[in-house]
Amino acid sequence: MLTLTSDFGTPYPAAMKGVILQRTDAQLVDIAHDLPRQDPRAAAFWLRETVPYFSPAVHLAVVDPGVGTDRRAVAIRVGSHALVGPDNGLLRPVVRRLRESLAADDPVVAAYEIVVDDPASTTFHGRDVFAPAAADIHEAGVESIAAVDTLEPLSLAECVELELPTATRDDGTIHGEVLVVDEFGNAITNIPGAWLADSDAVRVDGERVPVAETFASVDPGERLVTVGSHGYVECDVNQGRGDDAFGLAAGDSLSLRLAE
Amino acid sequence: MLTLTSDFGTPYPAAMKGVILQRTDAQLVDIAHDLPRQDPRAAAFWLRETVPYFSPAVHLAVVDPGVGTDRRAVAIRVGSHALVGPDNGLLRPVVRRLRESLAADDPVVAAYEIVVDDPASTTFHGRDVFAPAAADIHEAGVESIAAVDTLEPLSLAECVELELPTATRDDGTIHGEVLVVDEFGNAITNIPGAWLADSDAVRVDGERVPVAETFASVDPGERLVTVGSHGYVECDVNQGRGDDAFGLAAGDSLSLRLAE
Amino acid sequence: MLTLTSDFGTPYPAAMKGVILQRTDAQLVDIAHDLPRQDPRAAAFWLRETVPYFSPAVHLAVVDPGVGTDRRAVAIRVGSHALVGPDNGLLRPVVRRLRESLAADDPVVAAYEIVVDDPASTTFHGRDVFAPAAADIHEAGVESIAAVDTLEPLSLAECVELELPTATRDDGTIHGEVLVVDEFGNAITNIPGAWLADSDAVRVDGERVPVAETFASVDPGERLVTVGSHGYVECDVNQGRGDDAFGLAAGDSLSLRLAE
Repeated sequence: MLTLTSDFGTPYPAAMKGVILQRTDAQLVDIAHDLPRQDPRAAAFWLRETVPYFSPAVHLAVVDPGVGTDRRAVAIRVGSHALVGPDNGLLRPVVRRLRESLAADDPVVAAYEIVVDDPASTTFHGRDVFAPAAADIHEAGVESIAAVDTLEPLSLAECVELELPTATRDDGTIHGEVLVVDEFGNAITNIPGAWLADSDAVRVDGERVPVAETFASVDPGERLVTVGSHGYVECDVNQGRGDDAFGLAAGDSLSLRLAE
Repeated sequence: MLTLTSDFGTPYPAAMKGVILQRTDAQLVDIAHDLPRQDPRAAAFWLRETVPYFSPAVHLAVVDPGVGTDRRAVAIRVGSHALVGPDNGLLRPVVRRLRESLAADDPVVAAYEIVVDDPASTTFHGRDVFAPAAADIHEAGVESIAAVDTLEPLSLAECVELELPTATRDDGTIHGEVLVVDEFGNAITNIPGAWLADSDAVRVDGERVPVAETFASVDPGERLVTVGSHGYVECDVNQGRGDDAFGLAAGDSLSLRLAE
Repeated sequence: MLTLTSDFGTPYPAAMKGVILQRTDAQLVDIAHDLPRQDPRAAAFWLRETVPYFSPAVHLAVVDPGVGTDRRAVAIRVGSHALVGPDNGLLRPVVRRLRESLAADDPVVAAYEIVVDDPASTTFHGRDVFAPAAADIHEAGVESIAAVDTLEPLSLAECVELELPTATRDDGTIHGEVLVVDEFGNAITNIPGAWLADSDAVRVDGERVPVAETFASVDPGERLVTVGSHGYVECDVNQGRGDDAFGLAAGDSLSLRLAE
């Protein structure tokens, strides 16, 4: 299996698929191709939250504002998964997540640089560099990744790091950040759901908002705070957009107090 | 084969696909993931009009404003098809349609409640309840649906009903309703195409509009009434948006008179 | 393998897939279903630039403003590829491109009319005419295309022609046209990249713009001219939309001078 993730819209992903299927007979699954443009951090979040639901596979991910510059192209093996993409950090959070979940098995983690001399374009390495590498890894098998011609061993520590910010708390106030806004308009923060304890309500930037387990707990159009499917606190609206109602966008910080 | 339908946008459907492919080796086909948000009626229409074109398969459909509440999760077998989704009525019209088309074979129709204790999330049962159930039914085979662990027999009559409204006519006036607006802007009504007889024109809410078999029968930008590919009367514009030109949205009623 | 291209959005392509998979067991790959509406020229460009990346396959392409009129439905074999769609020219540029790339092998090029008496709809030949024909060709095998029941031999010369405009140059001024704008907002012209020679800058409609190999060569928000992944000159903005910044839309002409 080979998954594809990008900010390419259409029809560029189809060229990648054509290239891949010329090289290997893989079941292809799209994760998303409409991720926020040129935003490796958002892609890093979605990869971390989505890839672990898959059986071992090759995961191609291209959100690449530095395409054509001297930023590296990399492939990272974690156990029986392989991640392929630009070396701008977007693969690091999912690599950590996979490593944790596989820890008991002492998974192999190994990084490689993808070396392609003179790719056909300077602006579409998804098609000319990453797709061929992902296909070749799929064809060889992740366990035999080291045998792929275009890969040269690299230390993971040399790869660009990207850490999603973590929330903090002091004196009953939680300081968090909106990591992404999903297509429903839910503002997904980095605040662990467990920090809400059993509160019935919180103050978000000073305003009281009910904490609820389900959207339908509040009337349509009303705001709620919930623990989303990723385990993080979300600022939502039942049948509406949380980002608008809370005035929050990706990257915004917010403070949250458990209400008495 | 396993089809997927939702209002999830991206990348949430990918998590469902990961879960499914961990459990069964299915060919996945997306019907749509950008259906009108939180609108089981629109989903019911599109399922009814699309699913019957498929060979027997498992069809997962999640448009679920009541997620996390005590609304039931259900699976319904109709002949060799199985439908899986929330018990809010969205599966009922396609169940009726499949039953009609399979009537000669006296198809088995059987409903089941999906019982999952303590799903991982309260807001993403697509991933945590429906995808596992659909995968398990696919893996068992629809004929062996009763053997799936998480399913408990249920009377179809206990399931939530949803009837798409039907058109009426009296004294030469047809009273209909817009069921959905498609992405072209075509306003698809519930008026059977045959009711237009061989009229050359109709009055829609009083205004004369030509009836035509093809968009190209009128000039670009001009309005027409046609019998769409679902067999219903549509209010359209050649190379434009019918919903705008007619001032019609999903749920709006309209009256139509055959013009002399 | 069978690829699908249309301007249908969702969920109409799913009905085509259901029809296809009832007739043949094909791996389906979407090229795009959100191409500019009713614009065979844009589809012709994207098909020409995308299809050649695929192994031999059947390619179904439906952008069809004349649906239901007496425009022909056609299938064109080029070597081991087959193209299926309306006879409005959208297949011609990719047929030429495939023919060139396969020239050394003296590929068979043969056209057929698809004859379906009384299709189920007048407005959705994607489902009722083209999908069945594409599936039947896939099932028969492209080499046996002539054996498909619904196909009747036709001279390619009888098919509607569509030539994408070509750029010209005189006295150091290049006259080109924007062929399409992609989802990033890149305005892709018909000017061959080689015509930029090694210029560091050009004047686009009189204004000086740097020529760069990569987006990241200029600051975010700044304009650049680059040779895109199709080999054509593009008017772009780093992390922004070139169409807006240059005031260019598909079909617009532009003049370009190599700057001293």
